[in-house]
Amino acid sequence: MKKHLLVISTLDTKGRETVYVKECVQKLGIHPVLMDVGLLEKPFVPPDIPREEAAGAAGYDLDSFIRKGDRSGAVKAVQEGGAIVARRLLREGKLDGVFGMGGGTGTSIATFIMRSLPFGLPKLVVSTVASRNIREYIETKDIVMFHSVADLLGSNAFLRLILGQACHAICGMIEKGSALQKEKPMVAVTAYGINSACALLAEPQLQKRGYEMIAFHANGCGGMAMEEFISEGLVAGVLDLTPHEIADEMFGGYCKGIGPTRLETAGRMGIPLVLAPGGLDNAVFSPFYPMPDRLQGRKKHVHDIRFCVRMGPDEMKEFARIIAEKLNRSSGPAHVLVPRRGWSEADKPGMEFFDPEANQVFVDHLRTILTPRIPVEEMDVHISDPAFAARAVEIMDSMIRQNPIRLHPQMKGFE
Amino acid sequence: MKKHLLVISTLDTKGRETVYVKECVQKLGIHPVLMDVGLLEKPFVPPDIPREEAAGAAGYDLDSFIRKGDRSGAVKAVQEGGAIVARRLLREGKLDGVFGMGGGTGTSIATFIMRSLPFGLPKLVVSTVASRNIREYIETKDIVMFHSVADLLGSNAFLRLILGQACHAICGMIEKGSALQKEKPMVAVTAYGINSACALLAEPQLQKRGYEMIAFHANGCGGMAMEEFISEGLVAGVLDLTPHEIADEMFGGYCKGIGPTRLETAGRMGIPLVLAPGGLDNAVFSPFYPMPDRLQGRKKHVHDIRFCVRMGPDEMKEFARIIAEKLNRSSGPAHVLVPRRGWSEADKPGMEFFDPEANQVFVDHLRTILTPRIPVEEMDVHISDPAFAARAVEIMDSMIRQNPIRLHPQMKGFE
Repeated sequence: MKKHLLVISTLDTKGRETVYVKECVQKLGIHPVLMDVGLLEKPFVPPDIPREEAAGAAGYDLDSFIRKGDRSGAVKAVQEGGAIVARRLLREGKLDGVFGMGGGTGTSIATFIMRSLPFGLPKLVVSTVASRNIREYIETKDIVMFHSVADLLGSNAFLRLILGQACHAICGMIEKGSALQKEKPMVAVTAYGINSACALLAEPQLQKRGYEMIAFHANGCGGMAMEEFISEGLVAGVLDLTPHEIADEMFGGYCKGIGPTRLETAGRMGIPLVLAPGGLDNAVFSPFYPMPDRLQGRKKHVHDIRFCVRMGPDEMKEFARIIAEKLNRSSGPAHVLVPRRGWSEADKPGMEFFDPEANQVFVDHLRTILTPRIPVEEMDVHISDPAFAARAVEIMDSMIRQNPIRLHPQMKGFE
Repeated sequence: MKKHLLVISTLDTKGRETVYVKECVQKLGIHPVLMDVGLLEKPFVPPDIPREEAAGAAGYDLDSFIRKGDRSGAVKAVQEGGAIVARRLLREGKLDGVFGMGGGTGTSIATFIMRSLPFGLPKLVVSTVASRNIREYIETKDIVMFHSVADLLGSNAFLRLILGQACHAICGMIEKGSALQKEKPMVAVTAYGINSACALLAEPQLQKRGYEMIAFHANGCGGMAMEEFISEGLVAGVLDLTPHEIADEMFGGYCKGIGPTRLETAGRMGIPLVLAPGGLDNAVFSPFYPMPDRLQGRKKHVHDIRFCVRMGPDEMKEFARIIAEKLNRSSGPAHVLVPRRGWSEADKPGMEFFDPEANQVFVDHLRTILTPRIPVEEMDVHISDPAFAARAVEIMDSMIRQNPIRLHPQMKGFE
């Protein structure tokens, strides 16, 4: 059976370009499904999914927004409705990839719909606004951003080349497919610059026990990407070795940007979690993420243009409260593992941040408020000690073996 | 003959992932050429282009940087040298596409090399830092940014899927090729939100005369992309209908970010230029591009979260000086065409910015300093009047016909 590519486009302003994409995709043996998300004129060609149908899927009357001149309402309607239609096509086996194109508005609509779809499904957008801050378009997703350089306006040799290359790219991705190879269950870990040794040491330990490691950079975006991975049932367990983002979130630091579900998805999904306080000894700042005045006078550790600031007893209590409240709500097995000899490369004997007493405030406070169901285990080593990674993996393996693995259909082979 | 894909990678930290990419690309019938840009350990596999050879191509001794621990020097060495090697491969017919992958440093090195290569040549980077401000990586180029979501660390089913899709994407792009179809010569135009009608009206006029139009969004990045297009000999003429970026550059506005060569490349290349003062009646600001205090009290026009501020006689003189100095240096034919009835949708009879007297200061001052070789022609119409676009195209067509078209080898068929 032919594979299906959903093509999301404003068929009023990008009609000719969309026809070019449609024909190119057809030549490559893929069946294009046109979704119109135009908000101005009538579509240049008849779509497979008219804009009214897209908006209607979410219960919106698109024409009423257009009549009122409520542009942001109309955008929201086709975004939310388009996402519902796309997920329905996926369930029906009629969606093998998504293609979008546009300027600011077109990119915003297409990527909203893409972000509602699972990891691994090919997603590509040709955009005039690709050379700037694209976080709002990409967020945590595997969206491919293709800079059009020139405006998507008019027909010319360069646009035909770029759109042709983009069609070949997405059709190639569809040929590769979206299925994860069902080899071994994946265990997610978090790491960042000054707490990465622990993850590197964990990998061979995990492999020895039959797992694969998937690492997420605890930089605000990475932690949330991991939460979504867990949410899609793609991992068998979580070694959250670097909840450092909590500190940066508190002070507006470099790794801020986590959402309220950070640290919560494993518990909600009933997936085993081992938590270590990696990087909670510090918050990271840079010229673009300036240190708040209330941290003046704290010990500093300079990285590059970024610098770390030592967290004290007050923050330790607050971290303990935040983590305990999240873990207390969990429905799955969890285990807190704390290294007594330091939580990062800046927090070890001889380094600026080494301060076991401050760290102990976290542990003591955590013990008073964490449900007794969840063990808090201390080890007299540094977080980068091989024994620490080995113990974390040992606990994880034991929890996974005692609990049925709940996995995404893509990974059912593991059960 | 097999097509060649240059694979740029740090073979110390991303060795296993690079081997996976190499094998995947080979299976797709493309010949991978590995360039090592690792700066720490020995490469995991033997590269085709060792890091010392890459750096050496630009005259750098990489080992001396590494011994001194001069990381930024080492990065610069492999960037500059890698670009020289890549351009040499292109000249030798051994480069049909470029693939890169990495975190911040790897992305920075790979995209630096990509930016040194012509438009149209397939360029794709798999990056952990794709969901943020990527302007420094992309700049004006057609680089495809593939968000890896997870760290490029360790081997797991998801990374293999993402890297496999990326290989299929770049190999598909190579299959499409990088040659522009030699149909008709392209004429570049600039447009932006409140001065786009003129470009839209110009397109059918250009088509009627045998040209294709390629439009650039005058937003700081787009204007410079056009300059690079001109520089690569890809266009036969330039209708610079929206030099608005000069105003935003002066006041730190939304469309700032142009470089010193803005408005100069056509003249340097001897390519015909028609310049109109589109959008020079205003500068655009937004919450992220705040209006300087010295513009307080000026007339405003609200767009969305962006707003425009009227430029006055002082700025008009300054715009005239900047433009005249640039045009006076040009070696090609140029023509300034000025609409007397307004330069944007906010500057027309009945709108906030309509002020022909202020605009006239620009024209009068320009006439006093512009070389008499370049005509300044006024028309008693608004810039969005069809007669204005028609006249601009008429001048352009006449200049192109009187001048030999100097084009890129890709477009030689037009001559």
